[in-house]
Amino acid sequence: MLTVDQLTDAVAEYVRRLEAGTASDIAALYADNATLEDPAGSEVRTGRAAITAFYRELDGLDVTAELLTVRASGDTAAFHMRVVTTAGGFITSIEPIDVMTFGADGLITSMRAIWSPGDIVHRRSTPA
Amino acid sequence: MLTVDQLTDAVAEYVRRLEAGTASDIAALYADNATLEDPAGSEVRTGRAAITAFYRELDGLDVTAELLTVRASGDTAAFHMRVVTTAGGFITSIEPIDVMTFGADGLITSMRAIWSPGDIVHRRSTPA
Repeated sequence: MLTVDQLTDAVAEYVRRLEAGTASDIAALYADNATLEDPAGSEVRTGRAAITAFYRELDGLDVTAELLTVRASGDTAAFHMRVVTTAGGFITSIEPIDVMTFGADGLITSMRAIWSPGDIVHRRSTPA
Repeated sequence: MLTVDQLTDAVAEYVRRLEAGTASDIAALYADNATLEDPAGSEVRTGRAAITAFYRELDGLDVTAELLTVRASGDTAAFHMRVVTTAGGFITSIEPIDVMTFGADGLITSMRAIWSPGDIVHRRSTPA
């Protein structure tokens, strides 16, 4: 079982890679047979190839990610973060609560992102 | 499947009952065979009797509960809240992130509370 500090550090590293890493960098934080459900209730993606493909949607976008709150206990971390992407003249901001479980090796074994369309804000990146 | 509004309302009702309800009032929001794990990684309590017993620890305490952030999607809601209890001259504040799943009938089917001892603040309720 990871400690609270290890879980918290693992979340911080995930947020850093979300901002600065490639899809492969992010997917490398997941266990081989991990599951990803983003948002919760949508298709569950299983395995690192499917997970890499999911994050590839962020490649080429300008992404900033900020950790707002993180909690950890047992094998689980839950965190509220703000992810801002800029593309095509629009800034999109989303602030989900993500829930992750981890294996003893520190790799993510499951991720569920809890958010709905009302949690997304779109705006033009340049004043009209 | 509940809507996002229904999930959000169910969380708000849970927080209200945490503050103003009895253990039975709170447990009535759970499905008969629901599970409760608080904090995540501790013993899983199963069924409404075990869940009622868990909340009975709050009976007789002065409790305030404030919802800070809630997110919902699919069958799941995740929320950050502040729970403050006053007893024996001490005020205890804890701010967990809770994750709940719900059945189509609106009852909670599982709850996991993500927090660690570092997320608890104790202080005297009266100045020395």
